[in-house]
Amino acid sequence: MRIAVLGTGAVGLTLAGGLAGAGHQVRVGTRDVVESAEREDVAGWLVGHPDIPLSPLDEAAAWAQVVVNATNGSASLLALEAAGEPNLAGKVLIDVANPLDFSGGFPPTLLVCDIDSLGEQVQRRFPDARVVKTLNTMNASIMVDPTSVADGEHTVFLSGDDAAAKAVVQGLLEDLGWTDILDLGDITTARGPEMVLPLWVRTFGALGTPEFQLRIAR
Amino acid sequence: MRIAVLGTGAVGLTLAGGLAGAGHQVRVGTRDVVESAEREDVAGWLVGHPDIPLSPLDEAAAWAQVVVNATNGSASLLALEAAGEPNLAGKVLIDVANPLDFSGGFPPTLLVCDIDSLGEQVQRRFPDARVVKTLNTMNASIMVDPTSVADGEHTVFLSGDDAAAKAVVQGLLEDLGWTDILDLGDITTARGPEMVLPLWVRTFGALGTPEFQLRIAR
Repeated sequence: MRIAVLGTGAVGLTLAGGLAGAGHQVRVGTRDVVESAEREDVAGWLVGHPDIPLSPLDEAAAWAQVVVNATNGSASLLALEAAGEPNLAGKVLIDVANPLDFSGGFPPTLLVCDIDSLGEQVQRRFPDARVVKTLNTMNASIMVDPTSVADGEHTVFLSGDDAAAKAVVQGLLEDLGWTDILDLGDITTARGPEMVLPLWVRTFGALGTPEFQLRIAR
Repeated sequence: MRIAVLGTGAVGLTLAGGLAGAGHQVRVGTRDVVESAEREDVAGWLVGHPDIPLSPLDEAAAWAQVVVNATNGSASLLALEAAGEPNLAGKVLIDVANPLDFSGGFPPTLLVCDIDSLGEQVQRRFPDARVVKTLNTMNASIMVDPTSVADGEHTVFLSGDDAAAKAVVQGLLEDLGWTDILDLGDITTARGPEMVLPLWVRTFGALGTPEFQLRIAR
């Protein structure tokens, strides 16, 4: 599939590389191609991924069949505006972002919590996109290499209103090696996985490593 | 040890039975002994547990070495007031309650979230109690029989400011069969496990059973 990964942070680059490695055509969308390409981490990554171009957000989204929101959760709605509502219409929009507020220092709090979620905000703002929340409960390296932790015996969640869109995302997750994929229900269920972040942060502190993941033992 | 379990709901009765079964002396604390004893579920349970008396909240707490808050999270502070601050002073106070608000129907929201937690509220209100948050992420039956799910391969969390109190609670959890006990840190880390409840509720909906538990796969 043609997949636009929006965002040049660790999550965006890691997902882009993983999805390309699974055989998909991938572009990375960014607000400013020149500025991003000059960043040391991005420049090094581009050398290792010559088949994945950087594109402006709107061009990447217009080209893609599937769009991944891997931008900073506090700026995701603005980034998706820049990608362009018509370029998202009818498309599967995978939201992996977390609406974290670091303004009070560490640990972060949530910008939206319990009676709403970023996944719902994205769906409301872009009603013609087919939003699926997933992958937001883990470190980026695990998203594209689930067997790196506990032989892959952990759980990734799906939330979204569009069953066909969730089926597409399930297929992409299976391409990445996922086996325990739990469909929680409609997009309001994104509140659950988003509210896991405070536990994630404390578990990271307790273990001293981000190399862990949630499993729904059953 | 002498353990007072405050609360006659499913969580309280299940924990009381489990702790007694592990060899501890247990009393169940309730606001109104006569009224509770006349409830059908409690009456039946008492027949099966002749060694566990019902006691008024303050008498149970005064007698105990360890107090368990298994009351409804929306009423826990009031129940602990009734147990009496002097009766809690210096004691390990295990808080297993969740501050759920069902006033808007199902699914419930959290009465306190992200910038505070019920565990912290209890510790602030009873500064001489040694509060440990634990066991709040699962169905009651699993609390006292962890091997009933996935051969016990799942995680129970500890949060609290008092290391010695956490060691006591760790011992009690081991008595109940727990092997994966993760100390998250001070009582503010209770925000993490308390904020898991929205995911728990949606997972319950998706699986159609409460017989599951979180594991930190690592």
